[in-house]
Amino acid sequence: MAERRGRPVGATGPVVRRTLHLLDAFSPERTALSLSELARKAGLPTSTAYRMLGDLVAWGALERGEDGAYRVGLRLWELAALAPRGLGLRERALPTMEDLSAVTRENVQLAIREGTEAVFVERIAGTGAVPVRTRVGGRFAMTATGVGLVLLAHAPSAVQDDVLGEEIPRFTDLTVTDPAALRRMLAETRACGYSVSDRQVTDDALSVAAPVHDHRGEVVAAVSLVVRHGSATPSSLSALVRAGGRAISRALAEP
Amino acid sequence: MAERRGRPVGATGPVVRRTLHLLDAFSPERTALSLSELARKAGLPTSTAYRMLGDLVAWGALERGEDGAYRVGLRLWELAALAPRGLGLRERALPTMEDLSAVTRENVQLAIREGTEAVFVERIAGTGAVPVRTRVGGRFAMTATGVGLVLLAHAPSAVQDDVLGEEIPRFTDLTVTDPAALRRMLAETRACGYSVSDRQVTDDALSVAAPVHDHRGEVVAAVSLVVRHGSATPSSLSALVRAGGRAISRALAEP
Repeated sequence: MAERRGRPVGATGPVVRRTLHLLDAFSPERTALSLSELARKAGLPTSTAYRMLGDLVAWGALERGEDGAYRVGLRLWELAALAPRGLGLRERALPTMEDLSAVTRENVQLAIREGTEAVFVERIAGTGAVPVRTRVGGRFAMTATGVGLVLLAHAPSAVQDDVLGEEIPRFTDLTVTDPAALRRMLAETRACGYSVSDRQVTDDALSVAAPVHDHRGEVVAAVSLVVRHGSATPSSLSALVRAGGRAISRALAEP
Repeated sequence: MAERRGRPVGATGPVVRRTLHLLDAFSPERTALSLSELARKAGLPTSTAYRMLGDLVAWGALERGEDGAYRVGLRLWELAALAPRGLGLRERALPTMEDLSAVTRENVQLAIREGTEAVFVERIAGTGAVPVRTRVGGRFAMTATGVGLVLLAHAPSAVQDDVLGEEIPRFTDLTVTDPAALRRMLAETRACGYSVSDRQVTDDALSVAAPVHDHRGEVVAAVSLVVRHGSATPSSLSALVRAGGRAISRALAEP
């Protein structure tokens, strides 16, 4: 039908989706991909993939190295810097995170909820601080991390039901995987204004997190301190991290 | 031709390019755009733009707010986090930049060259430090900034000719806009291993920058300290920033 008019109107959808599907092939484990790998992963003939990749490279969404491999390009990164929930949030939060880092010399993390997972938007790693499993731009289960518990505690009930209805991933012997126990932790998080993840992600890390609110009072992010287990008590960290959450909320409300 | 086969093969190019062109409408000044604004900027019928935007929203490249406006989405930001020249570089550079920030309490900046401009990949703003004009993900003329002079000094001759052949933008009375004077500054930057931008961007800022090399010895980025004019001499800052550039180069070379 559409083809008869000489302009393939009905074809934009598949092409747009196939283009985006090509980009889906990139992951933290695979940041450089060859033409044939990309074509295979996207289920496209090599010639079609080559043409689409050429357009993506011309625009700067991808870059092609001397090795022939495709990588995510700087133009995409520049565009992504305009995402309000990405770098926009991070820019507002960074001064406060640096304050927390300077006074504690520990890990400071900032995350938001994307669907049923937490996405880490910023991380300042303290020199000599306990190693953490997170990566900026990376995702993590909400049930285990301090920031995740805050985000889940303030998520819509349907999201909580989804997360707690699935199997809860276990990372250590202390990871809480019982839905009822997790619901109690979420209620406590809401009541106290902070969450505690004690060795639930790694065997030696304690994380305490607090919510970040937007100008309407909605929880849009969570900030945490992650320290070595035994080096501080949750209550001693909670005041600092709650004050940090409030400072970031205030920074977000500024014009 | 292509349409007759029932698969609009020749049409992928225009559609891919039109999709990317839609994304071009976003800028630091315009981070939220309505359907009609996007259609107009991309030169598309509203119905076509609406369909393409629907696909972009479904994938997460864009997000549509309660106000009906489109914004750059978190999925794009997650993908962009895989760009080796964006967050990848930044992750490797951040510990060193935090060291520089901690010992100086000044502004620390990291930039790369994209074509004929510098793109800021990271910035740590010192508390009480001199205000700077840069934004993470933002672009700036290479001729005026400390990091820009380093990047231009090590750019291919053709790029130098392009930049110096165009009109050089002026920001202050002290901005060097004479191509011959700039060529001397670039030669000095290469010889000394650092650049100096003294009140060339704002009336009160002094910037000293040094190169960051990849494992092959190519200059891939520049790091700078930006302080209030009069608070330190270029030579006192140069050792610190050169050591920082070397530390980041070493971090880049690690597997």
